[in-house]
Amino acid sequence: MVMGSIPEQVDVAVIGGGVGGYVAAIRAAQLGKSVAIVEKEKLGGHCLNYACIPSKALIHIAELFYDMQHSQNFGITAQNVALDAKKMLEYRIAVSRKLEEGVAFLCKSNQIDVLKGTATFLDSKSVQLTDGITLEFRKAIVATGSEPIVVPGFEFGGNVLDYKQALLLDHVPKSMAIIGAGYVSVEIAALYAKLGSKVTILARSDVLSKFDKDAVALIKKRFQDLGVRVILSATPAKHDAGSVGLINGERIDAEAIVVATGLRPFTDGLGLENTKVKVGERGFINVNNQLVTDDPNILAVGDVIGEPMLAHKAMRQGVVAGEVAAGMNSSYDNLVVPAVIFSDPEVAIAGNIDEKEGVKVAKFPLTALGRAIALDNTLGFVKIAFEENGGLVRGVEIVGPDANAEIAEAALAIEMGATVEDLADTIHPHPTYSEAIMEAAEDALGRGIHFFRPRQK
Amino acid sequence: MVMGSIPEQVDVAVIGGGVGGYVAAIRAAQLGKSVAIVEKEKLGGHCLNYACIPSKALIHIAELFYDMQHSQNFGITAQNVALDAKKMLEYRIAVSRKLEEGVAFLCKSNQIDVLKGTATFLDSKSVQLTDGITLEFRKAIVATGSEPIVVPGFEFGGNVLDYKQALLLDHVPKSMAIIGAGYVSVEIAALYAKLGSKVTILARSDVLSKFDKDAVALIKKRFQDLGVRVILSATPAKHDAGSVGLINGERIDAEAIVVATGLRPFTDGLGLENTKVKVGERGFINVNNQLVTDDPNILAVGDVIGEPMLAHKAMRQGVVAGEVAAGMNSSYDNLVVPAVIFSDPEVAIAGNIDEKEGVKVAKFPLTALGRAIALDNTLGFVKIAFEENGGLVRGVEIVGPDANAEIAEAALAIEMGATVEDLADTIHPHPTYSEAIMEAAEDALGRGIHFFRPRQK
Repeated sequence: MVMGSIPEQVDVAVIGGGVGGYVAAIRAAQLGKSVAIVEKEKLGGHCLNYACIPSKALIHIAELFYDMQHSQNFGITAQNVALDAKKMLEYRIAVSRKLEEGVAFLCKSNQIDVLKGTATFLDSKSVQLTDGITLEFRKAIVATGSEPIVVPGFEFGGNVLDYKQALLLDHVPKSMAIIGAGYVSVEIAALYAKLGSKVTILARSDVLSKFDKDAVALIKKRFQDLGVRVILSATPAKHDAGSVGLINGERIDAEAIVVATGLRPFTDGLGLENTKVKVGERGFINVNNQLVTDDPNILAVGDVIGEPMLAHKAMRQGVVAGEVAAGMNSSYDNLVVPAVIFSDPEVAIAGNIDEKEGVKVAKFPLTALGRAIALDNTLGFVKIAFEENGGLVRGVEIVGPDANAEIAEAALAIEMGATVEDLADTIHPHPTYSEAIMEAAEDALGRGIHFFRPRQK
Repeated sequence: MVMGSIPEQVDVAVIGGGVGGYVAAIRAAQLGKSVAIVEKEKLGGHCLNYACIPSKALIHIAELFYDMQHSQNFGITAQNVALDAKKMLEYRIAVSRKLEEGVAFLCKSNQIDVLKGTATFLDSKSVQLTDGITLEFRKAIVATGSEPIVVPGFEFGGNVLDYKQALLLDHVPKSMAIIGAGYVSVEIAALYAKLGSKVTILARSDVLSKFDKDAVALIKKRFQDLGVRVILSATPAKHDAGSVGLINGERIDAEAIVVATGLRPFTDGLGLENTKVKVGERGFINVNNQLVTDDPNILAVGDVIGEPMLAHKAMRQGVVAGEVAAGMNSSYDNLVVPAVIFSDPEVAIAGNIDEKEGVKVAKFPLTALGRAIALDNTLGFVKIAFEENGGLVRGVEIVGPDANAEIAEAALAIEMGATVEDLADTIHPHPTYSEAIMEAAEDALGRGIHFFRPRQK
């Protein structure tokens, strides 16, 4: 799949064609540099082919499938609502293929060479590719991403699936055990529960243990409605073709076992030891705020440089790294990386929503919101953390429908130094879920209109 | 339905308990004032009971009903998808009732008296109510809203419906003609087309003639798929129980005829002639930027003071008027009132998106957006108008799914004086429709990643 002519020398070599890598490549090319991407498998990487994109396609289908069977309150009924899982899989694969082809087209349009294979650094100026070719560069950008952590005793294979394989099934498993309870796990749990699987989450401690307890409580409540069983402080010990056994002797039905306990940065075979690049804790590559590693010729972006391991962080870093590699004086100085959990209800966070000295938290429940009542979907709230002195917005959490679309407003607010007054006084269209942000901001100012709090005198 | 004791004197009398009025009443009450609302029918007014809220409830149901029959591409099938329109109507009525009761509860909690009836000003200090009681006030806030314009020959009654009646049907008409082609008309057209009506729009000139042509083109395209016929430059001349006749002799099937040609401010019977209040063009009440009329004791908010006649504008003005009536030095100085058309595709606008001297327009099509491709819903785009010099954002238009939730970010951006660089450099979560705003901003900066434009050298 070598596209274009093979250069032996480029201005910028990008190792890894995922969302961090191809964005960096395009940005550098826009700035007039000759660029090559080395990709061992598919352009778009995990995000387009195995993670973000396919999961959202499948979640959308699962929600529709579920709603079709639960809309009697609206006056809608249907018989024999059926899912052809093979056709669903075909759709999901076609989506990824279309996006992959889109990235290939963008690379071609920007005159970026895409080289198939892996790359090993020979030194600070060159990499050797799988096919033996040596590629010399002025700057290299490492964008090799991450891979799922293996749980001993539950190595991937057979019915033990990583998140990628869990999104490539051609059938809906009768039962599914999910080891791990982070955001990937709760997304997959809601997805397959809505498609009809009997899902059990095996949480080492708690569900989404690093997240806001109020949000987690609503997800747990919804999981009960969906028939998702959550076992806290669970230690899986063994498994067979149809079940997982816990150390306490309990046996959990599991036609499919999904292990999603986290990701580790992927630097295997990169030959970083031949460069001045240094890796730190947990194997993440060290970079400065210009995304330059300890080797001045080599930059790195995305999952391989640290948390949060999210596609949109990698993409933003890709823009910055592409600019820095092209000689611009850019830096990665974003204040917030918003995060979305596409479970049920959706949870989206920007910034930090903890209450502490000098920082208060206001809240508005969706039970008081017109649109939520109109759509019969009131499970959720908006929280805003703000400085008591001056009202600067420090963090926003949105739980409920449309959270994924609304959190961008919160991210912009924080980046621009907005106060709760700015949010409260901006007209939010009615009736929309975005009004909940305004209402929470009004609550912060002690002037909430649609949620009554007795006045403190 | 008189709640609480009847006061003969209040600090603030609010005429009309719609979204402008009750918000003003609550805000004044929060500030310690004694407040009464005079409402002739239902708290929440048109918005909660007849317009915004019920239309969005019905649109949601119609979309689900339609999607249930059009999801074969996802692998989902269903037989006998059926709608019980009586049950849908019950749901829609229950939603409005719940919200009306919510407003009543908020009024009670804030110790606001709600007086049933109409009010006529006796002078600048008092109104007479229907039951003969005279209510004296220090400040009055007029929030009487608007009512549908009557088209001669198509007076409401029989099968000629206003938008309120069109949202209160207990059946899905086999055919529907809609006279007028503004935002209310295109919302009702998509709604009933998805429920199965054969819909014809009779546009005096064009569909959404005041809106961006690119957005209108997509709505027209979608209307073709939905079987909505649009007749431009149509002049309806007569009608009977089953049809509308045009002056050119054509006969349009119309079991129901919806007339939605606009709204006029409602001041009938208010007795404004007994005050110093003045009305201007088209009957709108004149106010200054503190929402005070030509009579210093009387304020006015919402539809009755002018365009845009939108609920969220009325609500914001309600906050300001409540504060001014309570003695605060607030003013209504919002830069933008975002607007949403909940048709298909959704269209949302904040600010002005016209290209002109010194103002350029950037655009990003949803066909290039990951989430849109994943959800198989790519009909739409984002446009941003920005100052060529400095990049200040002047206007944003969003066409497509989630537009209603995303436009709040644009409104905040404009209120805060954001530049396209601010929008482009803020991390938008992936994969969401909100990324299209970021991508359009990147296009404005000549560095669009996911939409290739050949470089101009």
